Amino acid sequence: MKLRLLAAIFLTSFVRAQDPLPSWNNTATKQAITSFVAKITTEGPDLVPPAERIAVFDNDGTLWAEQPMYFQAFFIFDRIKTLAPEHPEWKEKEPFASVLKGDIKTALAGGEKALLEMAMATHAGMTSDEFEKVVSDWITTAKHPTTGKLYTEMVYQPMLELLTYLRANNFKIFIVSGGGIEFMRPWTERVYGIPPEQVVGSSIKTKYEVVDGKPAIIRLPDLNFIDDKAGKPVGIHQHIGRRPIFAAGNSDGDFQMLEWTTSGKGPRYGLIIHHTDAEREFAYDRDSHIGKLAKVLDEAPQRGWSIVSMKDDWISVFPE
Amino acid sequence: MKLRLLAAIFLTSFVRAQDPLPSWNNTATKQAITSFVAKITTEGPDLVPPAERIAVFDNDGTLWAEQPMYFQAFFIFDRIKTLAPEHPEWKEKEPFASVLKGDIKTALAGGEKALLEMAMATHAGMTSDEFEKVVSDWITTAKHPTTGKLYTEMVYQPMLELLTYLRANNFKIFIVSGGGIEFMRPWTERVYGIPPEQVVGSSIKTKYEVVDGKPAIIRLPDLNFIDDKAGKPVGIHQHIGRRPIFAAGNSDGDFQMLEWTTSGKGPRYGLIIHHTDAEREFAYDRDSHIGKLAKVLDEAPQRGWSIVSMKDDWISVFPE
Repeated sequence: MKLRLLAAIFLTSFVRAQDPLPSWNNTATKQAITSFVAKITTEGPDLVPPAERIAVFDNDGTLWAEQPMYFQAFFIFDRIKTLAPEHPEWKEKEPFASVLKGDIKTALAGGEKALLEMAMATHAGMTSDEFEKVVSDWITTAKHPTTGKLYTEMVYQPMLELLTYLRANNFKIFIVSGGGIEFMRPWTERVYGIPPEQVVGSSIKTKYEVVDGKPAIIRLPDLNFIDDKAGKPVGIHQHIGRRPIFAAGNSDGDFQMLEWTTSGKGPRYGLIIHHTDAEREFAYDRDSHIGKLAKVLDEAPQRGWSIVSMKDDWISVFPE
Repeated sequence: MKLRLLAAIFLTSFVRAQDPLPSWNNTATKQAITSFVAKITTEGPDLVPPAERIAVFDNDGTLWAEQPMYFQAFFIFDRIKTLAPEHPEWKEKEPFASVLKGDIKTALAGGEKALLEMAMATHAGMTSDEFEKVVSDWITTAKHPTTGKLYTEMVYQPMLELLTYLRANNFKIFIVSGGGIEFMRPWTERVYGIPPEQVVGSSIKTKYEVVDGKPAIIRLPDLNFIDDKAGKPVGIHQHIGRRPIFAAGNSDGDFQMLEWTTSGKGPRYGLIIHHTDAEREFAYDRDSHIGKLAKVLDEAPQRGWSIVSMKDDWISVFPE
């Protein structure tokens, strides 16, 4: 009896050790992923040389959560509060005034324009080194308003396993996100194993200047590039210069990235994270103000994209 | 006697096999390079973790030759000749008319503006895939006007060895060039071992579009970014997001890249290629219209940058 129990434990560990995706239920999605990887890494007509194994992942809603707001928006609001003493005029000026009163809804009533104004006011006017420190300090201390977790604890365990699995198969993985490139770079290597040079994102303009004898990259309050929707293939082309063979996203903002990736020659894979788990994470798609998923959901079947249902495909959601 | 000769040959091969830079004379420059690499890869206070071993190399005049003109300019002129039948107006329109008459001097009299106009006319208005094919076809067939060699045969053998040596020591190497990013990417992997995602350069704008049901990146006749002078640190920051620890250049256009790289904390290395070999390559510096080298030469000693004299430091220049 004792021996049989030990044997069972041993066998279970063995099977788990063999399974590169232990947090994924053994569904059609998991099988499709592992079949694809087996196909392109096996000698034969579908073999893809390691140098061309480029995978691109959206970040918000794909690698970490994005509700009730993009986490970078929480960063912006916290920065506004921190910087308020230097900006007495914000007390009277929208959208800053509402943020300072804690009324996020009114602050965001101005839509993208308001968000952009707040992003510029908080992301520019300092050196890249200074900004990196601000982000690093915030990301290691700020907590999510409803879960009370660090934001980096709200990354998806199954996706971490997928990144590791692809890397083990010689994929080079890039983040391609609508989020700020410099907001992600300070922590993506530690959290996802993705180094800064493999992060593509939205950016503001910068200039090089020697200030008091010290060379610096100065962040300017001008938009440089928006890495969303049709901007994603452009960002991919600009940064990577190769067409990926694997793309993962979760919203209509990823449509063009999925389309560009999966319409190339040879074997291709498109993966969509569908947030179907109100209990363990969040449930939203067509009508969400964040991460709206409609067109991608409609076209996925005919385009052969895999849809991950969080609820059904994932054994666990967040790392323990 | 015979045995001693064999032993000598064996010893020489052995020493050469041990030497990662066999085309470099054993001068102070070579010793400085190998000392630096030994220092940052050896356990101790100067050890740099592999992930931070970022090296940046200029291309024109640093990895391959650039006289009597940047090689991309020859590409532009060849393209103008090829495209001329589709542009009858070019026969009367400068600078195109002069190019078609073979009068490059007059064509270039309009300076940067003229060159830019010709670049736009030949580099835009097609998809990225089409442009890649045009470059690939040209680079494998076009010959340098005075040496008769393929342009890719005019890369510097000692620099190829340096790239291999740095890679063997876990450096990640990026090209950071004023040249067009899409003009370099189709061949840098084959020639230098540097993949497209590690090429930073000047660029025109692009847009993503589905044309006749086929997704494409369309090249637009608008400048996007000039990766030269103070643009180089900006390009580095944008693409890599880390400050390099090793930079190599050959002209004043590389000054800011060298400055940004070598003024960071910890061990840093700046390398300058000085074209001093009129016999085997070209000799030029302060007064050259291409690759002007004055400020960098003046400041190198006080900034601790190494100067390679092609004539004295290199045993061979081009690959055999």
